[in-house]
Amino acid sequence: MSGMLISLEGIDGSGKSTQADRLLNHLRAAGHTVTRVREPGSTGLSEAIRGMLLEHTDLNLSDRAEAMLFSAARAQLVDEVILPALSRSEVIICDRFSDSTIAYQGYGRELPLEQISNTQELVTRGLVPSVSILFDLSVADSLARRAESDDDRMEAAGAAFLERVRNGYLALAAKDAQRWLVVDATGSIEHISGEIIAHVESRIERP
Amino acid sequence: MSGMLISLEGIDGSGKSTQADRLLNHLRAAGHTVTRVREPGSTGLSEAIRGMLLEHTDLNLSDRAEAMLFSAARAQLVDEVILPALSRSEVIICDRFSDSTIAYQGYGRELPLEQISNTQELVTRGLVPSVSILFDLSVADSLARRAESDDDRMEAAGAAFLERVRNGYLALAAKDAQRWLVVDATGSIEHISGEIIAHVESRIERP
Repeated sequence: MSGMLISLEGIDGSGKSTQADRLLNHLRAAGHTVTRVREPGSTGLSEAIRGMLLEHTDLNLSDRAEAMLFSAARAQLVDEVILPALSRSEVIICDRFSDSTIAYQGYGRELPLEQISNTQELVTRGLVPSVSILFDLSVADSLARRAESDDDRMEAAGAAFLERVRNGYLALAAKDAQRWLVVDATGSIEHISGEIIAHVESRIERP
Repeated sequence: MSGMLISLEGIDGSGKSTQADRLLNHLRAAGHTVTRVREPGSTGLSEAIRGMLLEHTDLNLSDRAEAMLFSAARAQLVDEVILPALSRSEVIICDRFSDSTIAYQGYGRELPLEQISNTQELVTRGLVPSVSILFDLSVADSLARRAESDDDRMEAAGAAFLERVRNGYLALAAKDAQRWLVVDATGSIEHISGEIIAHVESRIERP
């Protein structure tokens, strides 16, 4: 069999991490070798960049610098972790991938979409996930779920920004329905997990 | 008058810093307000990125991550320093700008040139220097001049890499002769300084 890249996308508070755990456990139980990564992060460089992006509010990041830093972290992740894992025929579950930059920096920050997309082609070497799962959630629900957690830079950008990000994700999913599964993130954990597993199993080869 | 961006380019050891000092002093004496910056660097974020790029060899940077980090540092410099200075009608002397990424990562690392160039358009918002000065030097001369200094990541990449970078610069200069002044970096400091000042004065408005 060949390897498979699965990305989980959506605005924060949508339950991606919980579902990543469940999918990971299911696939491992079925005999697959699975690597789970998060963006930005999962390499030495990418975790250092994560600190710049999500913690150092004193750096006064411009929108374009932000887009380039996420891209740098992704480039390193692709070259150091994802491509080697795919070449070993592993499954990679990626908490965010290039669609996050298109949704957040392209749609959300309103940077030029075509230039942002072209940059993603450069950093991923044209690699596109086999399956992308959009955890769709209203901005009101997202904000309510996150009320108890600490704000980081992306979360602090406000409701209008998050509305643009959500609509950007929905536009991306509509353009490539073959790749995307859109789940209603207000559903029960069990229900969403069942949907995701059924979808991934329909696309994956047996180990 | 309107502001003016001047970039100094070329492989290391070519005397850019010395000439940047002399040009700065000349323009200030002539009454211009001049800001001098270096890449990567000259903002809080960009200096932090400089540390990652030039010092932390343990991060095992991929070529694409390297290109994105230089681009992130440049995006922040453009937004935080260069565009505000231009809007105040200042002269900015930039030790390296987007042509460095095209020459080093595009020609030198052999990343796709069109994608690298498109990314530079995104990070600079299409800003192109009014004057770019290429300090042209043979690779043998460059290596000899740097024999006494500490090696960093870029310098350690070897003669074949530097040959591609040099030829890349010459190709960039040939494509836009109106913007570029190519100086022979083996000339005397006085001679080169005279060439540069004459060229810049022919392009600049009086303060």
